[in-house]
Amino acid sequence: MDNVQNGIDLSETSSKQSSINMLPGPTWVPDSIMSAMLNSNIYHRSEEFHILFNAIREKLRYVFRTTRDVYAISSSGTGGLEAIASNLLSSEQKTLTIVNGYFSQELSSIVGAFGKNPVRLDTPWDESISLDAVEKVLRDDPGIGAIGVAYVETSTGARAPLKELSAISERHGRLLFTDAESAVGGEEFRMDDWKLGAAVAGTQKCICSPPGLALVCLGDAGRKSMETNGRKGFYFDLRRYEESAKKGETPFTPALPQLFALRASLELIQKEGLENYIARQARCARMLRDGLMDLGLNTHVPLESASNVVTVVNIGRTGSTASQIVERMKRDHGIVIASGLGPIKEQVIRIGTMGTVDEGNVEATLDALKYVIRN
Amino acid sequence: MDNVQNGIDLSETSSKQSSINMLPGPTWVPDSIMSAMLNSNIYHRSEEFHILFNAIREKLRYVFRTTRDVYAISSSGTGGLEAIASNLLSSEQKTLTIVNGYFSQELSSIVGAFGKNPVRLDTPWDESISLDAVEKVLRDDPGIGAIGVAYVETSTGARAPLKELSAISERHGRLLFTDAESAVGGEEFRMDDWKLGAAVAGTQKCICSPPGLALVCLGDAGRKSMETNGRKGFYFDLRRYEESAKKGETPFTPALPQLFALRASLELIQKEGLENYIARQARCARMLRDGLMDLGLNTHVPLESASNVVTVVNIGRTGSTASQIVERMKRDHGIVIASGLGPIKEQVIRIGTMGTVDEGNVEATLDALKYVIRN
Repeated sequence: MDNVQNGIDLSETSSKQSSINMLPGPTWVPDSIMSAMLNSNIYHRSEEFHILFNAIREKLRYVFRTTRDVYAISSSGTGGLEAIASNLLSSEQKTLTIVNGYFSQELSSIVGAFGKNPVRLDTPWDESISLDAVEKVLRDDPGIGAIGVAYVETSTGARAPLKELSAISERHGRLLFTDAESAVGGEEFRMDDWKLGAAVAGTQKCICSPPGLALVCLGDAGRKSMETNGRKGFYFDLRRYEESAKKGETPFTPALPQLFALRASLELIQKEGLENYIARQARCARMLRDGLMDLGLNTHVPLESASNVVTVVNIGRTGSTASQIVERMKRDHGIVIASGLGPIKEQVIRIGTMGTVDEGNVEATLDALKYVIRN
Repeated sequence: MDNVQNGIDLSETSSKQSSINMLPGPTWVPDSIMSAMLNSNIYHRSEEFHILFNAIREKLRYVFRTTRDVYAISSSGTGGLEAIASNLLSSEQKTLTIVNGYFSQELSSIVGAFGKNPVRLDTPWDESISLDAVEKVLRDDPGIGAIGVAYVETSTGARAPLKELSAISERHGRLLFTDAESAVGGEEFRMDDWKLGAAVAGTQKCICSPPGLALVCLGDAGRKSMETNGRKGFYFDLRRYEESAKKGETPFTPALPQLFALRASLELIQKEGLENYIARQARCARMLRDGLMDLGLNTHVPLESASNVVTVVNIGRTGSTASQIVERMKRDHGIVIASGLGPIKEQVIRIGTMGTVDEGNVEATLDALKYVIRN
C-alpha cells in the first residue's frame, strides 16, 4: 500500500496515520498543522492572541475572497448555519431552502427550528438544480425573503450553481445564504464578486484543518438583514463576534488549538496559492471520476454538477452494499472512504478529494477499488 | 525563575511554555495531554470514535460523580449554559439568577436572551450568598420555576453554597442549575447526591484540558423539564446529544482534538484520584491566601466563601492598578495572572490554583508578587 500522502510519509507521523484518508471530511490534516496545536497553551485575552487573530483574519479574507471579516465560531458547521438562521432570517418572511440531499435537508431543518416559515424547493438528489425552477418560485411567491442552498451537497457530490443563484437572488431582491462547508478552499468561491448574502465554511474539509470551527462571513445583504432583525440567541449572536473582532478577540473562550491549526492550514494554502490548491483538487476529482467510469461506476449526479471535492457514485451494479465496500477498502487496503447518507446510504460510496489530496492517493484508491469490486 | 510546573520541566516542552500559568483558566495543559490531540485524525463515525466516546463517558461520570451521561458539546462553556437555558427553562415560569459577579451576570443575560422571564437576586460582589435571602425570594414568588447560580464565580473567587442551595430548591420544588465551569475537578461536586437539576463544566479550568468543549449534565429535574418543554434551537438541542450518545456518537462533527485531550486529562485525574486532585488545589489555594495575607492583601470575598481554584484579592493598598501588577508579574517574573473583570477590573488581581498547580508554583507566585508590590 502506498503510505504517502501529498509527499509526506505517513509512517513517520506521530498521528499514527497508517491509512489514506479519502473521506469527504474530516480530511487528513498534515502533521505540521496538527503540531501547531501544541502551541495553543496561551491566554485568549493576550497580545499573543491578538497577533494570532489578526493573522487568521487576513488569511480568511484571502480564502473567502472578501474584504470583510470572517468569524471563526467555536462549534461545528451546523453552529455557523444556526448563526445565520437566528441572526439574519426575518420571522415575517418565508425562507426557501433548495433541498437536493441530506445536508440541504438539514439546512431546511435548521431554518425550521428557528420558526422562520420554511418552504422547500425539492430537487431529486440525482438531478442538477434548475435555475428556472428557482426563478419561478421567487416570481410566484413574493413572501420569500431569503434562500438557502448547499454549495456542495456532500451527500450527493452535487455542486450548486452558486454564482447564478446569487445573480437571480439579487435580481429579485432576496438574501442568498449558502452552506459552503465542503466548498471553500476546494471550489471557486467569491464572497464579494458574487455578492453572497452569507456563507458558512468548515475547517475540516478543503481547508485541511481539524474540526471545531465554523467560519461565517456576511455580505452586504446579510449585514443589513442582521441589523433590521432583533438580537436573537446568545452564543451565536454574530453582533458579539463583530464587536469582539474590533479588539482582535472572540466573545467567548475560543477553541484555541483549532485557531493555531487554522493559521497553519491557511499558510499552507497561501504557499501553494489558492488557485493552484483548488486546481489540484479539481484535477484529482477528474482523475477519480474517469477511473470510476472505467470501472463502470457512474456519478450519482449529472457530470456537469459534479463537485471538485466529493465524488459520489452509484454502486448498484457491483452487487455489494456501500458498507461492504467501505469496510473492505479500509481493512484490506487501508483506504478510508464513506458510504452514503439518508435514503441512499447503501447505494452509493463517497470519496473525497479535499485538502492535500494528490494524484498518488487517487491512483491508490482506484487500484484498491478495482480489486474490491472485482473480487 | 522556577521553570517547572507540577514536576514537568517547561523548558523541555514543545508548547514553548516559558512561564508559569496561574490564570483562572485557560489553565496550563501538560504536554502529555496536548500531544494526545495529535492522534485525532480520525473519522467521527468510526469504531475508533465509539471507543473514545465511551471512555470519556465513563471518566466524566467519575468526575461529575454521577451515573448519568455528561454531554461534551463543541463550544465554549457559554454554549453549555445556552443549552440549559434553551432546553430546560419554561417560558411560562420565571427564572431566578443569583448574581454576585461578572459570570453570574452573564448567566442572567443568557437566561434573558431566551425570553425566560429573568429575575435577579443581586448579592454584593464582595459578600457571601445569603441562603435566607434565596429562601425568602422562593417563598415570596411562586412564579419562579428555576434558579441559576455560578458554583465558583470566577470574577470574585466566591464559591456558592451549592449543596445547600440545591436542598432549598428541592424543598420548594424548583429546578436548580449551575454554571460549574471553574468548579468541576477543583471543588467538591456531587451531581447525584446533591440532586442538581443541571450543570455545565469547562475543560480548560480544573480539568486542565484545552478549551473548546462544554460539559453538560442533567439531573432528574433537568431531564423532566426538558421533556415538558418543546424542542428549541438546533445546535444546543440536548435531545440530539442524548439520541446520538446511544450510538456512542455526537450529533454534529465534534472538536476531535479536544476529545482526545479530554480523555488524557481525565486519565490524569483518575491516576491522582479525584479527591487527591481536588485536595491539592485546595492546599495550594490556602497556601496562596495565607501568603497574600502576609503581604497585607485581603480576599475580595469573605474567607468562608473563598474557592479552591481562584483567589481574588483587593490591591487598593499597593498603590498599583491590576494591569500594572499583571504586566510586571509577566514581564519580570514570567508568571501569568489576571486582572479583574467588570467594575472591579483594576481593583483586584485574580490568581488560579487550578488543574496541575503545585506548591512550587504558589511559592514562585508569592515570591514574585512580594517583589512586584514592594518595588
